[in-house]
Amino acid sequence: MTGIPVVSAAANFGERIGQTRRAIAERDDIDALIISDLNNVRWLTGLASSNAAALVTEAQVLLVTDSRYAQRAIAVDPLIDVVVYRAALATVLSAAIEAGVRTVGVEAESLSLASFEGLKTAIHETATELVATTGVIESLRATKDDSEVAALAMACTISTDALGALLPQIAPGMTEVQIARQLEFEMGKAGAQDRAFETIVATGPNSAIPHHVPGTRALAAGDFLKIDFGAMYDGYHADCTRTFIVGGEPTDRQVAVYEVVKAAASAARAALVPGIEVAQLDSIAREVLAESQLDELFTHGLGHGVGLAIHESPLLAASAAGTIPSGAVVTIEPGVYLPGEFGVRIEDTCHVTDSGVTILTEFTRELTRIA
Amino acid sequence: MTGIPVVSAAANFGERIGQTRRAIAERDDIDALIISDLNNVRWLTGLASSNAAALVTEAQVLLVTDSRYAQRAIAVDPLIDVVVYRAALATVLSAAIEAGVRTVGVEAESLSLASFEGLKTAIHETATELVATTGVIESLRATKDDSEVAALAMACTISTDALGALLPQIAPGMTEVQIARQLEFEMGKAGAQDRAFETIVATGPNSAIPHHVPGTRALAAGDFLKIDFGAMYDGYHADCTRTFIVGGEPTDRQVAVYEVVKAAASAARAALVPGIEVAQLDSIAREVLAESQLDELFTHGLGHGVGLAIHESPLLAASAAGTIPSGAVVTIEPGVYLPGEFGVRIEDTCHVTDSGVTILTEFTRELTRIA
Repeated sequence: MTGIPVVSAAANFGERIGQTRRAIAERDDIDALIISDLNNVRWLTGLASSNAAALVTEAQVLLVTDSRYAQRAIAVDPLIDVVVYRAALATVLSAAIEAGVRTVGVEAESLSLASFEGLKTAIHETATELVATTGVIESLRATKDDSEVAALAMACTISTDALGALLPQIAPGMTEVQIARQLEFEMGKAGAQDRAFETIVATGPNSAIPHHVPGTRALAAGDFLKIDFGAMYDGYHADCTRTFIVGGEPTDRQVAVYEVVKAAASAARAALVPGIEVAQLDSIAREVLAESQLDELFTHGLGHGVGLAIHESPLLAASAAGTIPSGAVVTIEPGVYLPGEFGVRIEDTCHVTDSGVTILTEFTRELTRIA
Repeated sequence: MTGIPVVSAAANFGERIGQTRRAIAERDDIDALIISDLNNVRWLTGLASSNAAALVTEAQVLLVTDSRYAQRAIAVDPLIDVVVYRAALATVLSAAIEAGVRTVGVEAESLSLASFEGLKTAIHETATELVATTGVIESLRATKDDSEVAALAMACTISTDALGALLPQIAPGMTEVQIARQLEFEMGKAGAQDRAFETIVATGPNSAIPHHVPGTRALAAGDFLKIDFGAMYDGYHADCTRTFIVGGEPTDRQVAVYEVVKAAASAARAALVPGIEVAQLDSIAREVLAESQLDELFTHGLGHGVGLAIHESPLLAASAAGTIPSGAVVTIEPGVYLPGEFGVRIEDTCHVTDSGVTILTEFTRELTRIA
């Protein structure tokens, strides 16, 4: 692989546990937190499991998962107590009740109503109360530590390496699905455990559909080819979009739209500093498009945080509140979509620090002819 | 493509709406149902959307989705009223309140606690009550109609065709990830819109891990190679597992375990008739393994329904209740896992009718040497 060298760092779970305890302490309404979102469990404990829950109290961190994950659970940080049992959620609640916790938060955005009803039955006639919370761990996850940045950088480098390997293989006549699968094959070869999400390959007029599902349309000369893709590495997601011109010279209109999107992306990246309002960033990109009367064709938000989930905090959108924390890894992805004609999106995954922005998905943003 | 001819049939949404209304009428606790599970919305209305909700009352079926899906929403069955608005769930609830619905069911297994709290706020000081329900639409989906069976058969034929195309390309030294991506490429070539789920490729000792995540282990002579995979076609999922011996003769132990798993799968398929208890099916497979003292190494359930979701009703497991309905499409997938040594799983997607079982994933189940 080429690209920036990746510095590996071990995750500091003691630090993450401390952050979680402080977040609980800062709230008036909970004494403890039940964590059932599986990405949140993974962030807190390091355990990737399809069935797990955790409890954080002042005195204890308890992780429960089933026997399939027992070997890996045993290897988590010694600060964390582990119980291997299938009913993960019920078990952490029992522990909270036994510990005499009065108010225990649950994660309302990921917990199903059915699971919540089960927990409510279990606290009946106990002194423990359940409190719906949102975003407690998600807010902490918005700031990435060194180990996370290393994994994200690796995922991004794999992604751009794979794109570089794919381009010479692309030829008119290939279908969108074929291009998508070939890119995923190249990501695997470059070291990806898997794709980070369903690869979007959109050709010609399909490029005007922001989240087109690849189909059987064959690539043709004169098409814009929009590829939105990323690799997953050690659980962390890359997210990158490039738009290419296929088999010929672009029209003046294609060039004009492309250059405006490129300028909008560049302006937003230049404004990306810790503390800036997410809505302001969105507006900076939108204003560049507005100068060419293209802002109404930018029909989605500017970007999103990326980490253990492909979409996570912070959300970068006109309607979103809050600021970019130092240490955030976010996408900047303006696009312009002309229905029935073509669309352009340029997206990079960016690491925001007090000393500047590092683009993790470094790959040419000049309008490039392929095939 | 080879395989069984696929008879295409149009989905009858009027029939599905009628079934839903009867299911609501059979319950004492609800007058209407809010459907928020996106697969349930798709089944009822035909609309594939990442943001949609539906309301079924005696008088109306209302579908709400956002502007991204407006074109497709307009084309749904004329029995269904469509509103294009971003706040899909809130909008269907408002319609229920305005229609004077007294008790409206919500889908407790897929609705988040946060969404439920939002709905609770909206019904404040109205005459409408929310009732948690589970499995209303899922039970109906367990019986597939002709259009669904056609899509499932196509997904399965694409899958087995792709496996046939993959096998001659497999060679010792290929990694699990490479084999997985190559198979997904072949599925795309054969007509899959995408993979149905994360392809499992497990080599050598990794084949003893039931749901191994493909990694960098290189295939070696003497390995068992376990591939659990499927294509998605028109939203419907195929699910198939085969286990091969690589580059040489199997050991006596490998043959013995393989043949017992094959016999267990065969016995379960032979017993697969409408009306049989799901737990009994599981036990039939387990008893075949028990004759060779291998039943304790069969550490998961026998199978599951498959359709718009990769795992759906009915669940085939020792702890599950209920019977197989006529028209079900289910997997039969016994496995035996010898930790540190090897594992075998043989899985087929089967269509159960009153006149017999059709195996949709027809591909040799004899122990086959490859590479």
